[in-house]
Amino acid sequence: MSNHVEQKLAVLGLELPPAPAAVGFYVPVIRTGNLVITSGQLPFVGKQITFEGKLGESLHDQQGYDAARLCALNALAQIKACAGSLDAVRRVVRVEGYVHSAPGFRAQPHVLNGASELLVELFGEAGKHTRIAAGVAEMPLNAAVQLAVWVEVE
Amino acid sequence: MSNHVEQKLAVLGLELPPAPAAVGFYVPVIRTGNLVITSGQLPFVGKQITFEGKLGESLHDQQGYDAARLCALNALAQIKACAGSLDAVRRVVRVEGYVHSAPGFRAQPHVLNGASELLVELFGEAGKHTRIAAGVAEMPLNAAVQLAVWVEVE
Amino acid sequence: MSNHVEQKLAVLGLELPPAPAAVGFYVPVIRTGNLVITSGQLPFVGKQITFEGKLGESLHDQQGYDAARLCALNALAQIKACAGSLDAVRRVVRVEGYVHSAPGFRAQPHVLNGASELLVELFGEAGKHTRIAAGVAEMPLNAAVQLAVWVEVE
Repeated sequence: MSNHVEQKLAVLGLELPPAPAAVGFYVPVIRTGNLVITSGQLPFVGKQITFEGKLGESLHDQQGYDAARLCALNALAQIKACAGSLDAVRRVVRVEGYVHSAPGFRAQPHVLNGASELLVELFGEAGKHTRIAAGVAEMPLNAAVQLAVWVEVE
Repeated sequence: MSNHVEQKLAVLGLELPPAPAAVGFYVPVIRTGNLVITSGQLPFVGKQITFEGKLGESLHDQQGYDAARLCALNALAQIKACAGSLDAVRRVVRVEGYVHSAPGFRAQPHVLNGASELLVELFGEAGKHTRIAAGVAEMPLNAAVQLAVWVEVE
Repeated sequence: MSNHVEQKLAVLGLELPPAPAAVGFYVPVIRTGNLVITSGQLPFVGKQITFEGKLGESLHDQQGYDAARLCALNALAQIKACAGSLDAVRRVVRVEGYVHSAPGFRAQPHVLNGASELLVELFGEAGKHTRIAAGVAEMPLNAAVQLAVWVEVE
């Protein structure tokens, strides 16, 4: 019945995309115990990577931020597909962020805030999560960001 | 008594290697709750790294694929050492793949399929796992791939 | 009442620092089930990153080792803040180490031993953990090392 988190998304002018398919021989999301863990999500819109390239080279900080936000939306779509509803999420546990970084680019935390701020906007206190932030030299499909999200569900 | 997974390995012409030692001050595998988690596995055969170098430079895609498959075999050896038998595995949860990548190399998903396809060949539906795929610039021992595997056991 | 682990730290001439704040829109530590997981810790002393730069370039191996040890201390401060006392730690489960690496630097395992050896000095057998070791090209705040620690608590 309840659909609070998706209603909050709508207020932000966002909606859940279809959950993207995996780009290899794996599955996009899994549940183990009461943890739901996504695979690394890329900034897909449909079948298209929307932010290609490296931060600090062909992409500027705000594009990275937007790419991370989009990865988070895709992760939420995976979590809904696995848990049935985003309202089953008890808390967000962890965000793993890999940022496609040109030499000298060090604003990985700002880029990943694009994901983190969305999660806190949607889930409030329960959206506060731990995070790792790595600058990686090469990324599948030349994507700007890869993001995995861990949540606890009921 | 049962040894189904190792019998499937034999059908593929493979066998479990001895579980490789850690390359630092840590242990190669641990159990917490009903998760068994390996350390990052390298493409060792005995004490020798068999695939050295970067993908997209000194190594081609198929060598990366073979390296990932070998890392997965080593991970399975660790899991058996911890859980007693591969038949104790209820499902594969997660593969973390770090691919030693030269500038411009972006076929990390293909490389990691070398591990993922083996896991699904051995465990069927229960072998389907989530995955993260990062292209890293520098790797311990100049190995082509590093792979950590998470499984759920009974 | 008991404070065994901090007494061991004192014997080593060390003390727990204040737990560093997050450098983005996230929290530094979380508990899920009986796992306590830190965010990626940087080599902060107070508000200052003490080891800046890349291993194999502006920093030598021993500085990397010291940076990893400092990251581990900061992780322990986070774990105490979450669990109440380091004596609540039943075992260390996992260390994720990201080493800021110049081209050709491959001594990531030695660097991360700075963290791993401290954990075993403090917790003995229960301090033995799994580990992943990645050489990353770019790091938030130009830090030498980023380290996340997972422990099991009562």
